[in-house]
Amino acid sequence: MKNEAVYAVLIAFFLNIIISPFAIPILQKLKFGQNVRDDGPNTHLKKSGTPTMGGMIILMSIIVTTVCFLSGNRRAQTVLMGVIGFGVIGFCDDYIKVIKKRSLGLTAVQKLIAQLIVTCVFAYLLTNYAGISTEIIIPFTKGMTWDLGVFYWPFLVFTTLAVVNAVNLTDGVDGLASSVTVLVATFFTAVALMMQNAAVLVAAATVGSLLGFLLFNSYPARVFMGDTGSLALGGFVAMMAFVLQMPLFIPLIGIIYVIENVSVIVQVAYFKKTKKRLLRMAPIHHHLELGGWPETKVVTVFAIITAIMCLVGLIAL
Amino acid sequence: MKNEAVYAVLIAFFLNIIISPFAIPILQKLKFGQNVRDDGPNTHLKKSGTPTMGGMIILMSIIVTTVCFLSGNRRAQTVLMGVIGFGVIGFCDDYIKVIKKRSLGLTAVQKLIAQLIVTCVFAYLLTNYAGISTEIIIPFTKGMTWDLGVFYWPFLVFTTLAVVNAVNLTDGVDGLASSVTVLVATFFTAVALMMQNAAVLVAAATVGSLLGFLLFNSYPARVFMGDTGSLALGGFVAMMAFVLQMPLFIPLIGIIYVIENVSVIVQVAYFKKTKKRLLRMAPIHHHLELGGWPETKVVTVFAIITAIMCLVGLIAL
Repeated sequence: MKNEAVYAVLIAFFLNIIISPFAIPILQKLKFGQNVRDDGPNTHLKKSGTPTMGGMIILMSIIVTTVCFLSGNRRAQTVLMGVIGFGVIGFCDDYIKVIKKRSLGLTAVQKLIAQLIVTCVFAYLLTNYAGISTEIIIPFTKGMTWDLGVFYWPFLVFTTLAVVNAVNLTDGVDGLASSVTVLVATFFTAVALMMQNAAVLVAAATVGSLLGFLLFNSYPARVFMGDTGSLALGGFVAMMAFVLQMPLFIPLIGIIYVIENVSVIVQVAYFKKTKKRLLRMAPIHHHLELGGWPETKVVTVFAIITAIMCLVGLIAL
Repeated sequence: MKNEAVYAVLIAFFLNIIISPFAIPILQKLKFGQNVRDDGPNTHLKKSGTPTMGGMIILMSIIVTTVCFLSGNRRAQTVLMGVIGFGVIGFCDDYIKVIKKRSLGLTAVQKLIAQLIVTCVFAYLLTNYAGISTEIIIPFTKGMTWDLGVFYWPFLVFTTLAVVNAVNLTDGVDGLASSVTVLVATFFTAVALMMQNAAVLVAAATVGSLLGFLLFNSYPARVFMGDTGSLALGGFVAMMAFVLQMPLFIPLIGIIYVIENVSVIVQVAYFKKTKKRLLRMAPIHHHLELGGWPETKVVTVFAIITAIMCLVGLIAL
């Protein structure tokens, strides 16, 4: 299984770097140049010509790679379906942004309903098709599990929505979401290999695809992943965690997602109460940028924190 | 052994980030601000205030961490001695640069002799103290080995000097040598774990130390590793490869070192023959910078290439 996983990484990587040189000019030509969110730092205005929806390239290479190796394994299929489901929601969002020239895409309610539907389908597949139990592993207990029983479902729905939203927020600096998520996916690959869980193929394909994508997405980015990418990756992180029965590890390995999400929540709550801003701008990566950090420093520091926490995750197993 | 390795990474990481905030101002105060090599791009002139010899921080955290875990294992000791040996040569070089305000440090002959001495001591320890045979693993043959016999020694000397020189050349862009080498060290950690080779501790300590160092060394760098760092890391790569009997894997996992070294050789040879320059400037990272790549792009692309080749290395095993 080890060699299969490595081949999956390599195939997804090369697929990505073969597709990208053709796909990026097409995305640009079709005027998929997203209006950069009005709520970013002013320095980001120069990015308004960069094409978005690069997530389609990521998705394509993950799907092709996984299908290459997938001889009907239900766990891998379940994760893949989740990734595609969230990717499609993201695609609709990106597409509306471009067609309607509206910087915010789907309305919050539309997005929430779509995400709830995908999550419920995933929850059904997870337990009834892939045969995953409602037990989850407790970190730092040498593999002790906890059976959530009926509480498993609301927990799964809440966690998935939170993770997807958090990964979406993390995507605001060139290469940030891809760098952090490639490390998280590497962690999942290593753990799935240890557990001999066939979902390792999806994780490995994600690692390869993101390594390829980073060649074009790192500062200065020639393409953004868009919501197509960030929702798909958010879906990947949540689904992979549940297939491995490790949702309680997300606050460790996905600490950056948590910090990004919390920074927004705290900023909004603080502003409502005091009418003042706690951070210069939320999410926190913009706060750091406005404090003088170059984008690349944000990416490096957040990636290093993720790498260290993934190692803590290995010990916690 | 897995958990020990992870703890070694974490300890070295935290040691590094504890030491750095104290050490960097001291390095700066002692006027260890290195005159940036006269042969770099003009944009690098702004770097002349950045302190060098950050390699001392790397070395310190590697040594302390390894000694913490080392209960007399000879393989780990041998690698550690090599790393220290080359680190000391680098330190002398850096020190002369600072004291004599001479941008080039030790003369080429002094350096070569010192490196030869360290290499010979290492070669002796390797076979007579750590008990490593003169067989080396041939890549892509499922572990077939090749007994070099008496040719082992000249091969070891040549390879070590080439690798150390190449890693030294790679250190010319903020965070480049550290990023590439942290990945190579991760590869060695994984392989040493698979082989149950106790030298894994030195590799793991190097991973942690470099992750910590990168927080300060990534663009915009607050400290450089200097020759203290790059020679120590070069020594690490060479010694680790020999302890694992994998010197033939260096052209795979260390492809960036090879490219950097070859770019200089080709540039010089071409210039001697035609009086023209093939690259805008050698080593190749300066060529790319002068071609418009930001420093961070060079680092990202070279790191991704290294990650991919490390995976190829895993298959080749």
